[in-house]
Amino acid sequence: MGSKTTESEKVWRGRPQYIPNHIPEASYVRILDTTLRDGEQSPGATMTSMEKLGIARQLVLLGVDVIQPGFPSASKDDFTAVKMIAQEVGTVVDDDGYVPVIAAFCRCVQKDIATAWEAVKYARRPRLCTSIATSPIHMEYKLRKSPDQVIQIARDMVSFAKTLGCNDIQFGAEDAARSDRDFLYRILGEVINAGATTVNIADTVGTLMPCELGKLIADIRANTPGIENVIISTHCHNDLGLATANTIEGARAGARQLEVTVNGIGERAGNASLEEVVMALRCKGDHVLDGLYTRINTKHILKISKMVEEYSGMHLQPHKALVGANAFVHASGIHQDGVLKHKCTYEIISPEDIGLIRSIGAGIVLGKLSGRQALRKRLEELGYELKDDEVDNVFWNFKAIAEKKKIVTDADLKALVSYKTIDVKPTWKLCELQVTCGTMGLSTSTIKLITSNNSTHVACSIGTGPLDSTFKAINLIVKEPIKVLEYSLNVAENMDSTASTRVVICKGNNLTSTFTGDTIYQTFSGNGAGVDTVVSGAEAYLDALNKMLRFKESFICAE
Amino acid sequence: MGSKTTESEKVWRGRPQYIPNHIPEASYVRILDTTLRDGEQSPGATMTSMEKLGIARQLVLLGVDVIQPGFPSASKDDFTAVKMIAQEVGTVVDDDGYVPVIAAFCRCVQKDIATAWEAVKYARRPRLCTSIATSPIHMEYKLRKSPDQVIQIARDMVSFAKTLGCNDIQFGAEDAARSDRDFLYRILGEVINAGATTVNIADTVGTLMPCELGKLIADIRANTPGIENVIISTHCHNDLGLATANTIEGARAGARQLEVTVNGIGERAGNASLEEVVMALRCKGDHVLDGLYTRINTKHILKISKMVEEYSGMHLQPHKALVGANAFVHASGIHQDGVLKHKCTYEIISPEDIGLIRSIGAGIVLGKLSGRQALRKRLEELGYELKDDEVDNVFWNFKAIAEKKKIVTDADLKALVSYKTIDVKPTWKLCELQVTCGTMGLSTSTIKLITSNNSTHVACSIGTGPLDSTFKAINLIVKEPIKVLEYSLNVAENMDSTASTRVVICKGNNLTSTFTGDTIYQTFSGNGAGVDTVVSGAEAYLDALNKMLRFKESFICAE
Repeated sequence: MGSKTTESEKVWRGRPQYIPNHIPEASYVRILDTTLRDGEQSPGATMTSMEKLGIARQLVLLGVDVIQPGFPSASKDDFTAVKMIAQEVGTVVDDDGYVPVIAAFCRCVQKDIATAWEAVKYARRPRLCTSIATSPIHMEYKLRKSPDQVIQIARDMVSFAKTLGCNDIQFGAEDAARSDRDFLYRILGEVINAGATTVNIADTVGTLMPCELGKLIADIRANTPGIENVIISTHCHNDLGLATANTIEGARAGARQLEVTVNGIGERAGNASLEEVVMALRCKGDHVLDGLYTRINTKHILKISKMVEEYSGMHLQPHKALVGANAFVHASGIHQDGVLKHKCTYEIISPEDIGLIRSIGAGIVLGKLSGRQALRKRLEELGYELKDDEVDNVFWNFKAIAEKKKIVTDADLKALVSYKTIDVKPTWKLCELQVTCGTMGLSTSTIKLITSNNSTHVACSIGTGPLDSTFKAINLIVKEPIKVLEYSLNVAENMDSTASTRVVICKGNNLTSTFTGDTIYQTFSGNGAGVDTVVSGAEAYLDALNKMLRFKESFICAE
Repeated sequence: MGSKTTESEKVWRGRPQYIPNHIPEASYVRILDTTLRDGEQSPGATMTSMEKLGIARQLVLLGVDVIQPGFPSASKDDFTAVKMIAQEVGTVVDDDGYVPVIAAFCRCVQKDIATAWEAVKYARRPRLCTSIATSPIHMEYKLRKSPDQVIQIARDMVSFAKTLGCNDIQFGAEDAARSDRDFLYRILGEVINAGATTVNIADTVGTLMPCELGKLIADIRANTPGIENVIISTHCHNDLGLATANTIEGARAGARQLEVTVNGIGERAGNASLEEVVMALRCKGDHVLDGLYTRINTKHILKISKMVEEYSGMHLQPHKALVGANAFVHASGIHQDGVLKHKCTYEIISPEDIGLIRSIGAGIVLGKLSGRQALRKRLEELGYELKDDEVDNVFWNFKAIAEKKKIVTDADLKALVSYKTIDVKPTWKLCELQVTCGTMGLSTSTIKLITSNNSTHVACSIGTGPLDSTFKAINLIVKEPIKVLEYSLNVAENMDSTASTRVVICKGNNLTSTFTGDTIYQTFSGNGAGVDTVVSGAEAYLDALNKMLRFKESFICAE
């Protein structure tokens, strides 16, 4: 059976319309962002469909080629998110002719593929990403299938995807890193023959050294029948801290799609981070990295990084490359001295290139006398383009903060914007809270909650600390079995600044997967922001709690 | 002038006594840990000399070849730390004949070198690490010296170090990554000729791709006169997220000393992380990485990671490779299913290999009825070997916690041990605290502090939240100009667990460097632990404040 190429496949395989004229097509590297799929698989990083839509909008500003918004079979919420993103974000066309590909994830299972297509078909450039494990250990212990069976399933499922009318089909070889090479060439050749247009090579457990990943891609390029007609993609995990390097080596060896996540979030130690991969290609693409090019608008990096940090609750360490709080801070005297004399002594990237405006006190301009226009202007300077009603929403919260503290800083504004603009109706809302605590006795909290249908409930509880007593008082009202897994709080700048709080909870009793009958352990994170750390803790807890109450069932899959 | 090799140099250059018999000397990779020098240069990560001593003791258990405990000229505290570590940790000899090298950092400045030697000479294997920038931009703008002047300084200072009686001299080429190759070969050849026994090649700004760093090391190996008689070392920064990969490529190209930090902390985006580099070599040393070998006892990794996180206040993101909270957590149903069927489906490293004992509820055994022996046994299981008085110290704090909550978990114990065992006398200590806060009014704190000479002081203050009012009340007593730069709090496991709090502060007015006359911006971090988050916040604030009050002057240097 020979490889057949339809007209629409040729469009995809050919020169995308939005490559600048001076870039040869062979040098163009596609960025597939999977923050909303693999990134969301980080423990506790569950996001609502509205949060996902907000991030997808930012991914368009960033200019990623492919957005992978979720796994529609995993849950109703994920189905809704993928459909919403396909309908809104997937129909954008910018001046360069750029249309993001919207790529739904699915296992090599007919029901998954059909569901994924139902969700994603509304996009102008819909893609199905279907994946199956190809390593001996996964085939034997997880799939319990023979290699020949796996090949047949893969070929049949790619053909099935084509029958649905999908012409952009990505086949993912899960755990390709530990797969037998000859088997890999065979299965990839078969799926290409069946109609796959991109093949994704996953180092699912993050075990490869950069030299090994480069060789894997080169070997596949050299030995797979029909590989010259498709795009090779990499999907690297960070278990040994090598995901970014591996991804870059993959590109050097011929991969022209790179799967990444914002902030490098994802299962376990996460995925290759978008900002690291993109900035490495930007800094070294011209000379060292063979002219490789991405069209990412890097000035939007910091903004989406903050947004993902907030929504996923996956806080970054201060020394996270590029987007950590310290990435552009010079602590030692010699470094400060050097930077003052010549910026490039210790900086290879200008902070402005990723959208960081260094304030050095200049950011401190807004206070309680500031008006709506001053607020809007500052928000625009910070890169937020909000609609009128969104500005209104932020404005009243801004005034409330300004009443309590003299100066409202950029950090306060950012916390307010990312917290307030996407307004999901909560089931339970904080009405009033009074707390007494300290070293002299047991903490005591009195709390009043209001439900979506306006009934109020009051309870009080003691606890080992102010948050413990507050959460216990909430539990007395809500009457759900809840286990708090994590609590963290960050205050940038001064102590009277807005605090961002994150709480991760899970149900006290476990859920059972409808797919496998296995027990699963679903966690939910919530965020709060405010000047009172106990109040913002209570809001974060209620946020997580409301997510949990809206959640029906979930079964999430990884590559 | 020909290269002269003394007998003691030969000992160092030759086969270290502690390499196992089956490992060829050419495959033995030395690990230099610079957590206490470059790591401490992370903004806010200032550690006391006692904290540094505690970490150095753990580095010996880990078996690092070289400990770089600080920069003695930077401050009196750093001088004291280096001297203390040289005297205690630098005189250890274990059964294999292992003696850690203690390496003091200094610029290529005579006064620095003399001071460094004064501090480090007590070790059995003392080393001086002297460093100067070799890139055109650094020489022109920072040093304001010609290349020939820089060569002369480097040669003279290595000779000067020799005259002090030091036979183990490391020469560091700062910003080697951006240096002219021929100049680099020349200056390295000169310092080797003058007596340097290790040459350190620094990618100071973290700009190189892995392939570039490999080529840099290979080029130096091929073109530098006398290079075959010395050890080549790498020092990689993580600005593009590539420090670990670069370090490994350096080793593949012939570097036999790797400079790393625990948790990858350091200036800006930090350094190559010890745990990532060591575990990559352990996983892939045998086959992929040419038989490379380190003697690190990886079972101690997690313990030192937690200790460094606590003392430096540099909290790790949940997806930090190997030592992040999620590194061994499987969130998705498919992954959980796979791991239950066969652990290796999604794990390449056994958590036990880095010292992680997965508790799955089994850790929850201690409560208020538990005795000192049960506590000591559990602490031993967790890897802590404490002296009697240290166990006592932990025990009473453990009882205090156990009174307030039903179950004391392993996470509680770890927080207690790392917080309590190294007891630095504070200038100000928390005596009593009572706080009222919530949505109904302004937070109010009443606080009683006690000084080291037993006088008590009481104050109360209102604020925008419970921490703000508490810190303001402390300020009313202490009367120092203080700016809070960062506040963060982490609670692992349940809400009634011990909270670890971190506060970073700086003086409200700036300091001036005694070296350059430049204004420097010195930050201090403090940690607190306890079940009441507000109380632990107050303790962290006082901890940082006491560090600040003890601090005299500082000028820290980087490579």
